[in-house]
Amino acid sequence: MDDQHTTVAQLRQAVAGFIHQRRWQQFHDPKNLAMSIAIEAAELMEHFQWLRSDQLAAATRSPRALRQIRDELADVMCFLLSFANTLEIDLSSAVRHKLVKNARKYPARKYRGRFQ
Amino acid sequence: MDDQHTTVAQLRQAVAGFIHQRRWQQFHDPKNLAMSIAIEAAELMEHFQWLRSDQLAAATRSPRALRQIRDELADVMCFLLSFANTLEIDLSSAVRHKLVKNARKYPARKYRGRFQ
Amino acid sequence: MDDQHTTVAQLRQAVAGFIHQRRWQQFHDPKNLAMSIAIEAAELMEHFQWLRSDQLAAATRSPRALRQIRDELADVMCFLLSFANTLEIDLSSAVRHKLVKNARKYPARKYRGRFQ
Amino acid sequence: MDDQHTTVAQLRQAVAGFIHQRRWQQFHDPKNLAMSIAIEAAELMEHFQWLRSDQLAAATRSPRALRQIRDELADVMCFLLSFANTLEIDLSSAVRHKLVKNARKYPARKYRGRFQ
Repeated sequence: MDDQHTTVAQLRQAVAGFIHQRRWQQFHDPKNLAMSIAIEAAELMEHFQWLRSDQLAAATRSPRALRQIRDELADVMCFLLSFANTLEIDLSSAVRHKLVKNARKYPARKYRGRFQ
Repeated sequence: MDDQHTTVAQLRQAVAGFIHQRRWQQFHDPKNLAMSIAIEAAELMEHFQWLRSDQLAAATRSPRALRQIRDELADVMCFLLSFANTLEIDLSSAVRHKLVKNARKYPARKYRGRFQ
Repeated sequence: MDDQHTTVAQLRQAVAGFIHQRRWQQFHDPKNLAMSIAIEAAELMEHFQWLRSDQLAAATRSPRALRQIRDELADVMCFLLSFANTLEIDLSSAVRHKLVKNARKYPARKYRGRFQ
Repeated sequence: MDDQHTTVAQLRQAVAGFIHQRRWQQFHDPKNLAMSIAIEAAELMEHFQWLRSDQLAAATRSPRALRQIRDELADVMCFLLSFANTLEIDLSSAVRHKLVKNARKYPARKYRGRFQ
């Protein structure tokens, strides 16, 4: 079951089930989950901490490095899904809504190839 | 189109389209994206920075606060999806694989109601 | 040599010496150091990740926990000092200048006991 | 009063005074302060978010950019000093102790010019 055949709701349910089986909802309040997302994001950053821009392609080529990076990304994603579960936020609408907002803020013509 | 009817691949494509229209792929290397996830996670944390655990329920009840929190969560999600796009990581498999790994590390019986 | 008898410049020199002996200045650019401060800050957060506000006092009472927390705080501080060294920022003036700015933004009378 | 003539204790007192005048000690528990350090570290990162390694020197040359970066660094430092105040951690001993520990972990000869 890959991204092509998995709905966001299915991923949310997988995480919700894991939390429920351990009775961890009591710890998963929005403050702790925002912290947890930040903590896992930092562990993801660690993989690139001392690399120059021109070293990134080589560093992400090894299957072993990629596996570790994938696991860290999954950790961020799990807490993000749990956060969405806790506050009952629909992620798909949230992302689409934010892209519309950002498209107004950064019109494609003006920002082509420039980030500011 | 909500989480129930949106595949992870569809969300990835929405973000990829946004980036492509602005020719921003050049900036979206794994190091910059890991930083960006962490930066947006910090903006999410800001909403809870000074709140005690017992104040969280009230603070997340107002529609205005919820809208801002939803927007910050969307920002984290957009960069996370772009990271997955850049390194071609299948998020659904990554999350499922990590949950299996975590289930071994934290057996439900032993960790019921305890996080350590 | 404790905080009472150590100047900020002495701490900066201790860190600069450590970096110089390893020829690590090449890695200590402002981007990598800002990331490193954030990474170590996340490791500091980890100690409090799942604790409720009312559990913090007990959790920071054990000498073993305190030693670990002190080490994480030192890691943040070392990268912060190295950042100041790299961009030749005087930390004492920077802090005093920011406190004056914040005192204007948060007048003591108006913000007594309130953070917003 | 610059880094050459300021003790760490003097900086700590400046921050403690600011907090005390506003009766903000109640908010400055270790969890909130660790979050705050991470939040300010993220704001510092933002200045370098989309820059390649070879663009950093130019980007940190303008006095206006440097002033903003100095203010963000001061924010990280203020919360770090408040954290040290709250848990009564001596920063100078903590840094020296950690440098000794790191010197054992990364012997200068072996790690000259290499970070791993």
